[in-house]
Amino acid sequence: MGFSVADAKTAAAVLMAAELRGIPSHGMIRLREYVALWQQGRINTQAQIKIERERKATALIDADFGLGLVTAERAMQLAIDKAKVCGMAWVSVKRSHHYGIAGFHALKAIKHNMIGISMTNANPLVAPTFSMQALLGTNPIAVAIPAGKYPAFVADFATAPIARGKLDILHDNGQEAPQDLVQDSKGKVSAQANILTQGGAIRTLGGTYDKGSHKGFCLSAVVDILSAVLPGANFATTVVPTLGYIDKADKPIGDNQGIGHVFAAIDIDAFQDVDAFKQKMDAWIDIMKQATPIPPHPSVIIPGEPEWQAEVQHQNQGCINIFPTLAKEIQKLQETFEIELM
Amino acid sequence: MGFSVADAKTAAAVLMAAELRGIPSHGMIRLREYVALWQQGRINTQAQIKIERERKATALIDADFGLGLVTAERAMQLAIDKAKVCGMAWVSVKRSHHYGIAGFHALKAIKHNMIGISMTNANPLVAPTFSMQALLGTNPIAVAIPAGKYPAFVADFATAPIARGKLDILHDNGQEAPQDLVQDSKGKVSAQANILTQGGAIRTLGGTYDKGSHKGFCLSAVVDILSAVLPGANFATTVVPTLGYIDKADKPIGDNQGIGHVFAAIDIDAFQDVDAFKQKMDAWIDIMKQATPIPPHPSVIIPGEPEWQAEVQHQNQGCINIFPTLAKEIQKLQETFEIELM
Repeated sequence: MGFSVADAKTAAAVLMAAELRGIPSHGMIRLREYVALWQQGRINTQAQIKIERERKATALIDADFGLGLVTAERAMQLAIDKAKVCGMAWVSVKRSHHYGIAGFHALKAIKHNMIGISMTNANPLVAPTFSMQALLGTNPIAVAIPAGKYPAFVADFATAPIARGKLDILHDNGQEAPQDLVQDSKGKVSAQANILTQGGAIRTLGGTYDKGSHKGFCLSAVVDILSAVLPGANFATTVVPTLGYIDKADKPIGDNQGIGHVFAAIDIDAFQDVDAFKQKMDAWIDIMKQATPIPPHPSVIIPGEPEWQAEVQHQNQGCINIFPTLAKEIQKLQETFEIELM
Repeated sequence: MGFSVADAKTAAAVLMAAELRGIPSHGMIRLREYVALWQQGRINTQAQIKIERERKATALIDADFGLGLVTAERAMQLAIDKAKVCGMAWVSVKRSHHYGIAGFHALKAIKHNMIGISMTNANPLVAPTFSMQALLGTNPIAVAIPAGKYPAFVADFATAPIARGKLDILHDNGQEAPQDLVQDSKGKVSAQANILTQGGAIRTLGGTYDKGSHKGFCLSAVVDILSAVLPGANFATTVVPTLGYIDKADKPIGDNQGIGHVFAAIDIDAFQDVDAFKQKMDAWIDIMKQATPIPPHPSVIIPGEPEWQAEVQHQNQGCINIFPTLAKEIQKLQETFEIELM
């Protein structure tokens, strides 16, 4: 596509991390979307990342419409460098694109004995409590926290209760959407897993007001505002759609400031000796693991544990598994770009 | 109880803010718990707040077991002062007690044209996904964000789907708990609103795994770790209980580092001109308010809007309403402390 080899390698590392960590929905399958954006002239392969504002513990980065996958690495590194001096740092990014798994960027802080935080806004697919329309993205947030004897705690989750990809899989298998999680174009609860293609929306975490969907709305809203409004990126329904089934006809691109991200780092030593902190994190994890599980579940699952297990397993077996749909996608890209696969 | 007049006024301001903002569950009704803690010798009325570690953008505060209501004001002010210089700041607190409504502290940042964030851990009442036992607190988080023509956006919510106080009210009215939100002592979903008094637990936001309760668990866990593990306060089940119905018999106080809080401030000018930001926040709120509401709801509710409306209404009528139970509580305290009410 015209990226430098270094940038291409950075981007590939993020996508492969998703595959390794058992999150193929954010791995190579996304190449299709990046290529589509590039074909529309919306991805700048020669982006010049620029720090537009800077304070001791903060920076605002203009990503110049490069790949989010690439911008993320530089922005997270800047947050880590600043946190080493200031104790914590917060780097905001505007004029960016999809950046892969949030957890990968947050995890960069771990080896510096820091807590890493990352979040991003996204295409509107989620309806706030009482809204007929989807106004917010699935807006993921990731928090990576080092432990001692255990692998790092990594909470990495879309703030919507169910992912678009999961709904697609349910629909492909002829299954229904879980109760109360999606609504039709009139705002009525729906069981149709493909309702997003028919003007429907995902509801916020909680599903209904009496079950706390307004708290889920708060969470989705905070991620949208911190990720996008703060740095001056496009927010809520002003995000320029990347998905085929969001109608673009009546949505000219207009003033496009891209999507926005946050990268933050907290230096543990600014609060507590690192070893003491890691021991406490181990104790925290022990409390969770030692709780009596509800049958038939073997135990409480620590955030990041399944992804870590998948990574170990994939490293051990020396390869990842590719779904037939992905194999087809890759073959198509291979033809488009006349690439010889290794 | 022996507090200085200044500290007593600070504490009263937080409790009255809860009453004014229509959150009486965090207002004067809490005096009972503070007095009980003081009678147990656990609240230090002469606390000397100490900054134990400090970097340019961070501080660790030892609250010396004073009232959280009082410590919070100083900690938030320190975060604001540091953010003025560094762009953002993060102040952690340990050895503290309950600090009232998180939103009040976050809101302190608004008049400085900053975003305010606050969170705290609390007594374990919440069971992680697949756990029979309650291991985490209802761990609230608040984010206050200034707007232009609109009142500030204030997301201020317990990360559990339903508050203990709300369950009490449902039980008092002979009503059931909403489906999937609470479980009995064996981890089975329960409809009993008083199940917490019988070894039950609140589930995390989402209620069940297929509806995203693991995301709710991530959120509760992150607030517990950032609020308590990071500064070295008691976390998860090591929090020393303050509630009568958590069995204290087999839980000696032991190494008590109190509960912990976070106070953070983000200076908007470090990212964008304040006026431009406020205009965008107004546009964000307009998008939400202009969405078609699902009947019979009149519109999407902006986080903080009901509290702001309650405050205006209470200011206009010049008084707040007191429930009979609260009137009785106040009368009891009046007798205990031989106070003449105005």
